Amino acid sequence: MTKQRIAVDMDEVLADSVSRFQDWYGRDFGRALTAEDMHGRHLLEVVAPEHRVALRAYLDADGFFRDLPLIADSQRVMRELADRYEIFVATAAMDFPNSFRDKYDWLQKYFPFIPTRNYVFCGDKSILNADYLIDDNGYNFERFRGEGLLFSAPHNARETRFRRVNNWLEIAAALL
Amino acid sequence: MTKQRIAVDMDEVLADSVSRFQDWYGRDFGRALTAEDMHGRHLLEVVAPEHRVALRAYLDADGFFRDLPLIADSQRVMRELADRYEIFVATAAMDFPNSFRDKYDWLQKYFPFIPTRNYVFCGDKSILNADYLIDDNGYNFERFRGEGLLFSAPHNARETRFRRVNNWLEIAAALL
Repeated sequence: MTKQRIAVDMDEVLADSVSRFQDWYGRDFGRALTAEDMHGRHLLEVVAPEHRVALRAYLDADGFFRDLPLIADSQRVMRELADRYEIFVATAAMDFPNSFRDKYDWLQKYFPFIPTRNYVFCGDKSILNADYLIDDNGYNFERFRGEGLLFSAPHNARETRFRRVNNWLEIAAALL
Repeated sequence: MTKQRIAVDMDEVLADSVSRFQDWYGRDFGRALTAEDMHGRHLLEVVAPEHRVALRAYLDADGFFRDLPLIADSQRVMRELADRYEIFVATAAMDFPNSFRDKYDWLQKYFPFIPTRNYVFCGDKSILNADYLIDDNGYNFERFRGEGLLFSAPHNARETRFRRVNNWLEIAAALL
């Protein structure tokens, strides 16, 4: 029987890119970005307008995506999912071409059981042919052909249109 | 009405990577790779066994994918297709991570009317959710959910399982 297929987003689902934003923003502007600040808002809405250009530039800066911390339990649950499902990692890398290599290396380091041929660096995720998509951005589900699972992040706290999973243990409960 | 979607492979469909192989192989080994040599065979089968490692290394060498010549009529027909269809470019880049940036820059230079969010750097192309896939490798159609159009290249001369298009004018005739 053909395995069902899960596509998994990378930033804020597997990799904790928010902590890197917090570190760099603190370093450059001497201010903290708290979970409360970020509740229901994208980072670009949280920071002072004059800092937005710098924040955007982080995403295309060499090293931003290097050695990002893991989201809790993602490795263990992904390994278990990989036994039962076909797993692809799908990351919106096209706005940040300098991130390609860091993302590729990070995935190989932390998820060596996912073959590189199952990496997808893309933009519009409606191109994914999968049964499930786990992602922190609801707009990625709007034209997705399978079922979206919204992975909780501070910025999506007010999104109510999609089935929500709060952490990797809830993903395990839902899919294993 | 929703537009139908076409995914288009890059190497040997939009970009003439074979000519780069011929150039570099001639430069390094002093031998020509002719169309006759390549008829029905992959390049790795054509060259002497002791040259295979070098040939594979070309694909991950800096500059291999830079400024590749265009496949005839691809720009014009792609521009016309883009009016009627949603076009994605899907390239198997994951075995050659050093190619990412060259491929990205090449697409922006020669196909500026395709938004970068419609680029897909992947491995296994069965992840593509599209109505058509234009590709020179028949194995990419085996699990593809739409219709495959095999773009003729010397190496696929003996492939008979899929609908064939010999050039971009035939693609225009089939899809416009």
